[in-house]
Amino acid sequence: MLKLYGFSVSNYYNMVKLALLEKGLPFEEVPFYAGQTPEALAVSPRGKVPVLGVKQGFINETSVILEYLEQSQEGPALLPADPFARAQVLALCREIELYIELPARACYAEAFFGMTVPEAIKEKSRAELLLGMGTLGRHGKFAPYVAGESFTLADLYFMYSLSLACGVGEKLFGLDLLEQLPKAKALLARLNEMPNAQKVEADRQAAMPAFMAMIAAKK
Amino acid sequence: MLKLYGFSVSNYYNMVKLALLEKGLPFEEVPFYAGQTPEALAVSPRGKVPVLGVKQGFINETSVILEYLEQSQEGPALLPADPFARAQVLALCREIELYIELPARACYAEAFFGMTVPEAIKEKSRAELLLGMGTLGRHGKFAPYVAGESFTLADLYFMYSLSLACGVGEKLFGLDLLEQLPKAKALLARLNEMPNAQKVEADRQAAMPAFMAMIAAKK
Repeated sequence: MLKLYGFSVSNYYNMVKLALLEKGLPFEEVPFYAGQTPEALAVSPRGKVPVLGVKQGFINETSVILEYLEQSQEGPALLPADPFARAQVLALCREIELYIELPARACYAEAFFGMTVPEAIKEKSRAELLLGMGTLGRHGKFAPYVAGESFTLADLYFMYSLSLACGVGEKLFGLDLLEQLPKAKALLARLNEMPNAQKVEADRQAAMPAFMAMIAAKK
Repeated sequence: MLKLYGFSVSNYYNMVKLALLEKGLPFEEVPFYAGQTPEALAVSPRGKVPVLGVKQGFINETSVILEYLEQSQEGPALLPADPFARAQVLALCREIELYIELPARACYAEAFFGMTVPEAIKEKSRAELLLGMGTLGRHGKFAPYVAGESFTLADLYFMYSLSLACGVGEKLFGLDLLEQLPKAKALLARLNEMPNAQKVEADRQAAMPAFMAMIAAKK
């Protein structure tokens, strides 16, 4: 059976978890907090989550795991078969990851964990986030899903990146990142109502107290 | 015919260009400096290079273009067919991009263009670069290629990311990033000797004076 290594608070973990649930694939969740210990690095070369355990070994990097599931497993397709349409979905995934999730991530410590992020990094993130939102507005279809008529991998990136990025925008910069994108805002609300998304969210909320205690212990 | 939009100084442009050359695909190079003008954003939603022009429209994001070429075009394969082996190559590509190229990129302005990068950003990049090199050392095979016996997309990421990252390591941090990875260092030298890589490098050098003049004019 597929094994999903990670923890329910991680937004990347939850992208893969929702993909597995939507595809109807059986999987086992293996608690794994990553980090830089030799044991963790034997599972994930960069010490990150999620990791997918399969018969031949470990697969890391969310984008790679998601494509692996598409290529090798049963269930509803989350990528179009046509190469050009597929490329548009994957480009949206990359744009959301590189230009929205990663700049927001550089500020998570201050936005969510009571730590301080240097001003230079916050300034860079703010500028990049605004360009990233412009990118999403130009490339996203929101008709009704991010890449068009169907739920795809781009929706997974969207729902689990935008929620956190919007938190960063609001808490650190006083910005509503979705203000100019009403269709995207409506989609985010709709995606969060999906039964499997609600299950992922319930697991996230249940795991949060232990995660926050772990963060507090490390400070 | 495939159209490659961008300019010969861009390392991401050169990853795609070498892929096209190695696959023996005919293509036309279209000079495109990207940026945030409406004209540029109509070609690339984030105003970046490279972009691949195909019959149906534009494809952006290097990783997406490279996979599109694998899926839809003729020529020697740069990804394994087996899903698990393919995932390992793609994970190496992502690791090089996210954990080596991107932290190094945050410092290019100071390392290569005589500008100043804030200390907080340099410190973050230094720490991330060291973790990224550790990741490459753990996951890379260098036997003799990055992912094993064959030249793959991971070698494209490796050659066009490490050269610049090593420049950042040396100029800003006094570090030889490849010091602990002699097989990687030897591979980099060997890859640079590939005839098509030499053509890409000659084009890069020819384009450099005009590019530096453009940077100087913008300062």
